[in-house]
Amino acid sequence: MSDGGLFDAVLARGAARTAVSDEAWLRAMLEVEAALARACAAAGVIRAEHAEAIAGACRPELYDVAAIGAEAANVGNPAEPLVRALRARVGGAAAQDVHRGATSQDVVDSAAMLVARRALAPVLGDLDGAANAAAALADAHRATAIIGRTLMQQAVPTTFGLKAAGWLVALDASAARLRAVRLAAQLGGAAGNLAALGEAGPAVLAGFAREVELEEPVLPWHTDRTRIAELAGALGEACGAIAKVAGDVVLLAQTEVGEVREGVEGRGGSSAMVHKRNPVAAISARAAARQAPGLVATLLAAMEHEHERAAGAWHAEWPALRALLTFTGSAAAWLRDCLEHLEVDVDQMRANVGDAEVPVGPASELVDRALEAHRAR
Amino acid sequence: MSDGGLFDAVLARGAARTAVSDEAWLRAMLEVEAALARACAAAGVIRAEHAEAIAGACRPELYDVAAIGAEAANVGNPAEPLVRALRARVGGAAAQDVHRGATSQDVVDSAAMLVARRALAPVLGDLDGAANAAAALADAHRATAIIGRTLMQQAVPTTFGLKAAGWLVALDASAARLRAVRLAAQLGGAAGNLAALGEAGPAVLAGFAREVELEEPVLPWHTDRTRIAELAGALGEACGAIAKVAGDVVLLAQTEVGEVREGVEGRGGSSAMVHKRNPVAAISARAAARQAPGLVATLLAAMEHEHERAAGAWHAEWPALRALLTFTGSAAAWLRDCLEHLEVDVDQMRANVGDAEVPVGPASELVDRALEAHRAR
Amino acid sequence: MSDGGLFDAVLARGAARTAVSDEAWLRAMLEVEAALARACAAAGVIRAEHAEAIAGACRPELYDVAAIGAEAANVGNPAEPLVRALRARVGGAAAQDVHRGATSQDVVDSAAMLVARRALAPVLGDLDGAANAAAALADAHRATAIIGRTLMQQAVPTTFGLKAAGWLVALDASAARLRAVRLAAQLGGAAGNLAALGEAGPAVLAGFAREVELEEPVLPWHTDRTRIAELAGALGEACGAIAKVAGDVVLLAQTEVGEVREGVEGRGGSSAMVHKRNPVAAISARAAARQAPGLVATLLAAMEHEHERAAGAWHAEWPALRALLTFTGSAAAWLRDCLEHLEVDVDQMRANVGDAEVPVGPASELVDRALEAHRAR
Amino acid sequence: MSDGGLFDAVLARGAARTAVSDEAWLRAMLEVEAALARACAAAGVIRAEHAEAIAGACRPELYDVAAIGAEAANVGNPAEPLVRALRARVGGAAAQDVHRGATSQDVVDSAAMLVARRALAPVLGDLDGAANAAAALADAHRATAIIGRTLMQQAVPTTFGLKAAGWLVALDASAARLRAVRLAAQLGGAAGNLAALGEAGPAVLAGFAREVELEEPVLPWHTDRTRIAELAGALGEACGAIAKVAGDVVLLAQTEVGEVREGVEGRGGSSAMVHKRNPVAAISARAAARQAPGLVATLLAAMEHEHERAAGAWHAEWPALRALLTFTGSAAAWLRDCLEHLEVDVDQMRANVGDAEVPVGPASELVDRALEAHRAR
Repeated sequence: MSDGGLFDAVLARGAARTAVSDEAWLRAMLEVEAALARACAAAGVIRAEHAEAIAGACRPELYDVAAIGAEAANVGNPAEPLVRALRARVGGAAAQDVHRGATSQDVVDSAAMLVARRALAPVLGDLDGAANAAAALADAHRATAIIGRTLMQQAVPTTFGLKAAGWLVALDASAARLRAVRLAAQLGGAAGNLAALGEAGPAVLAGFAREVELEEPVLPWHTDRTRIAELAGALGEACGAIAKVAGDVVLLAQTEVGEVREGVEGRGGSSAMVHKRNPVAAISARAAARQAPGLVATLLAAMEHEHERAAGAWHAEWPALRALLTFTGSAAAWLRDCLEHLEVDVDQMRANVGDAEVPVGPASELVDRALEAHRAR
Repeated sequence: MSDGGLFDAVLARGAARTAVSDEAWLRAMLEVEAALARACAAAGVIRAEHAEAIAGACRPELYDVAAIGAEAANVGNPAEPLVRALRARVGGAAAQDVHRGATSQDVVDSAAMLVARRALAPVLGDLDGAANAAAALADAHRATAIIGRTLMQQAVPTTFGLKAAGWLVALDASAARLRAVRLAAQLGGAAGNLAALGEAGPAVLAGFAREVELEEPVLPWHTDRTRIAELAGALGEACGAIAKVAGDVVLLAQTEVGEVREGVEGRGGSSAMVHKRNPVAAISARAAARQAPGLVATLLAAMEHEHERAAGAWHAEWPALRALLTFTGSAAAWLRDCLEHLEVDVDQMRANVGDAEVPVGPASELVDRALEAHRAR
Repeated sequence: MSDGGLFDAVLARGAARTAVSDEAWLRAMLEVEAALARACAAAGVIRAEHAEAIAGACRPELYDVAAIGAEAANVGNPAEPLVRALRARVGGAAAQDVHRGATSQDVVDSAAMLVARRALAPVLGDLDGAANAAAALADAHRATAIIGRTLMQQAVPTTFGLKAAGWLVALDASAARLRAVRLAAQLGGAAGNLAALGEAGPAVLAGFAREVELEEPVLPWHTDRTRIAELAGALGEACGAIAKVAGDVVLLAQTEVGEVREGVEGRGGSSAMVHKRNPVAAISARAAARQAPGLVATLLAAMEHEHERAAGAWHAEWPALRALLTFTGSAAAWLRDCLEHLEVDVDQMRANVGDAEVPVGPASELVDRALEAHRAR
Repeated sequence: MSDGGLFDAVLARGAARTAVSDEAWLRAMLEVEAALARACAAAGVIRAEHAEAIAGACRPELYDVAAIGAEAANVGNPAEPLVRALRARVGGAAAQDVHRGATSQDVVDSAAMLVARRALAPVLGDLDGAANAAAALADAHRATAIIGRTLMQQAVPTTFGLKAAGWLVALDASAARLRAVRLAAQLGGAAGNLAALGEAGPAVLAGFAREVELEEPVLPWHTDRTRIAELAGALGEACGAIAKVAGDVVLLAQTEVGEVREGVEGRGGSSAMVHKRNPVAAISARAAARQAPGLVATLLAAMEHEHERAAGAWHAEWPALRALLTFTGSAAAWLRDCLEHLEVDVDQMRANVGDAEVPVGPASELVDRALEAHRAR
């Protein structure tokens, strides 16, 4: 997926897309198997040499995504064919210790958490970048008058600094929520009770969680999807915060308003209409962000997992979670780009205010509060 | 709304429905006006006698919901006609101090937070009741064998205690998230910069937040809807956790499975088929819970507020938030009822397991972990 | 809107709200029972006197919505307690012929179709009203220059007549789709096979459909929810078409654009800012229309009905369908009001175009096509 | 599925996935440019030799998807860089006649319609295949007793033939709706008024529609997205109809019910539990179908296009529409496979009915109605 497709530069910008690629999933599943083997060895369930043999075979380049994907059709998930391929690769006595005590969902769920954590890194990096850019605008424009607009009508004056501070606070809030999401290791075995690991079960679970550097859950969570819901909700919230900022940029950049424009050279031009400068970054951020509400709904509706392992609801999570991470990443990357290059037309803002007196003082105090909270986050 | 309508006993059970009624909203809006007056007085913005005159007129029984609702059509929200009615009621010099420094959205948003907090009380009470019932089942059935079912096929044995512990952990997780939602006071005035209150603005905001016992925000959040998104997401997560448990009850109660049944006398019978006992509580919980994903999507999509006050997106929140609180409350109330009266057929569970050996030990240890986490929550 | 609630005048405008009220549902359920009795009599299944006795008792004023609603909690739907109340009211030998061969879902589903048909009347009336207003604008302004705006930037000139014609075509398309929705009678009995009516089953079904003036389905459709999906989809499409028009009005009414304003005296003013004229109708139309996507998702997700009658998915349809009809009705009513009173500032439109030459000719030809299609619809 | 990814065999089965690939989009966009050139030539707007030169350069293998995709970031859509590449390829005097009178959205929208039409072919093929399989089951099992189940409780007997007939009718209804979707050509130019084509505009539009074999619209529909909404709604309806059937298969295949099983050799086995036979096809159908409600919501919410061309809402359609076509195709392909290989355990069905008398007659008559409607579709 390194090159990107026809629509990816617009809708799947940023590193989140590659962080959720097939290759990234394969790598994460293999890390899970390696970590499981090591945790089993540490708990005395399998021999250390077997664990090392297994871990040594958990190199993504040894496996064929397309072949494993094709075989997944027979069982409904890619973990089972991967485990078979890994067993074949390991060979000998160690082969039977591959995937010890685990079920396919342990592998896929733990891998999903690893994939999510890696995809969240660029998402959060770009959210922070956008927030920093908003903070800089807030600080620089604390005395820049702008007309306040309510219900899309000019109302009373305020400052552009406070407007940017409002963007900042919402972006920071959504980033904080994303950082608080509980990403946990998954290990439960066939019925989610660790039975196949016997008395060592809890120790293996704890060791496994340490190996993959994910939270150790109170229970295996095969059919407790609150973590997925939290992740989804936090991503949806981030997209909403982004969409608000992008929407404001689009509105402020209207020809008739003319208070900001995107400042990346060579972007947003129109071959037919040379006078136009389309706010491509803000538009692209909106387009990606607007995928979120429906995807969050899909993930929430999929929480109803039957019994010990769901017949469809679990599988339904995969494409929706992947898409949600990708689009949130794209929206954040575009918004950061937008705000880092935003050109502010202070004179036009002042002209749109007219002669009205502008209450800079209270707004500036509020900007200080926002900047302080940003620094303290 | 005291009596309930044709579908309310099924779909809008519990006290959340009345907590979001028109009367509850009216009361909350008046509390906001009273709190604002007192905060203004405390900050020296208005005279204490005026504040008391205003607070004294903030009694819901003095106002006509239907009349205020009808006038709302002229401005697009019910706060403006309420403020006019309140001013008329207060009269005299104090009338001009009604709603001092505030805008309609300050009143509606702060009232929404109060309404939400009150509606969350029964939601959380019933979620906790359901969790307690699940905890009791987990504890009582830690040695009760049940066949584990994956992909809706019998797999390997586990215990019903662990199954109930899984319900418990998910319900507790969703309740914890609901408790963590940031409900904040709203006060910003026409452009969200507290300008109309002058230098006293921040002090009035702080005092107002204390009066209504809501968090003081860093900034007015007229167009930062991350709080609404968090509330929505947490409610959606709770509905998902509830739906999973209710779905399991429905599946376990199937005639061919016969492992549980709902035990409320006189409910679930069928006039035409006397042998039937429909799991009405679980079914009703599902029906309400399934409203959530779409409503969460509505609220997330509505985060894109324009400029200083939105032209439609804000108004779009009202019915969706109200419905989401109502349905989550109904789902929680039904699930609590379901679990508190659940009849467990231990013999049938054992019969469905057959002769297989049941690994009670590891499951029991996991149940202990879940119960401990429940007690420590 | 005399007896509406606090938010109804804004969000639940128009007659659709009352067409889906508890009283309307009760009336429809009783009409279904009366029609069923008559169809049974016509097919020789019950005696004509019994049918008349039953039909005579099917007067809504004889039944207590709140009491029936409360009893619904025991069985999960309001049809069962209504049937018992109806039996008690009819008394004597005819009582046993009440609800002959039917199941609760027959009553609720058929009533839902009647309720939907009645709610669609004002929805379609207001959609047509809005379309007629758009047609009048298209006709009147076929030579009115306006700057075309793409990606929210001024692009090249076009005419306001063509813009209005675009609104017209979309509104007409959505109305046509709503009119094509297949509203069918429901009658199947306990297992959906008409078994309780014996050989007369198909004749009773046909007669019943004629009595309620609904389409006769090929099969009972207890768990075939394609009709609900079509209705939902068509309502969602109508809301989308409305939202587009309302959004354009909001954008054109911006202070900086100033090309249209809503012209209802006394509406949209701001006490604090006398120069403002908020486009309340367009804003309210948007707010209602934006409820639709989530509600449509709820109804589509609820299509997965189990076996012969669903355990929750059916019940989940009721509030979502009711809300969707109400909000579509409100959106249509507000948009009609908006367009019927729209004030167009031709000079301001011309000023925003500047000196550019305006290609009126092709646009006018396109307007003719739209008007012709409108007349021929 | 030879070159699919890790999850595609499970979640993106069938030919719809490739019909919406980047390559398919590129091909469709080039077909649009070729058709436009020919239509322009036929209307006398450009020279025939130029049209042929352009059409000759519209071969997908001449263009680099990744390069065009990367350049799309500068303008927000892939049509603009493709047009530039096409112009460069054509060269000479004909180059200026490339894309004559058109705007990027004309190309992308018309291509979207072509892509949708091609993706619908396998969707409809598999829906028909599934319907035919259901029809065969209905016909073969018109006398096969099965217990009717309501609210997931055994109720009264019916026939498996009628159950399958119910599946058939819903599948046929959703296919009929998909076939009725209005797929139209898009051509409007920069402001949607065909101005750049002068008097020849309508003739070019008509000729272009003929060339691409799409409906000629009354008006260009750049911001009238009712067609997209109809397509989305019909796909969502199909997914709901599929999910119902797949859900029934999953329920009937439960170990405790045991009335059907999927009969594809080597699929659905469990390495750990040899007695298991997971209904992988039905489960995969459900997983794909459950993506639909959220995606439909995304597309409906995106109907609010601003002015003459939207700033984000248009772009938001691309991934959602592509995903919706892919998932509907996958769900249909899996369901067809499931039903074509469904093994029915008539004895187990009879055993679950017990001694009850089975009303075969009325059910069989209803089966006839369904089969007749299927043949007449």
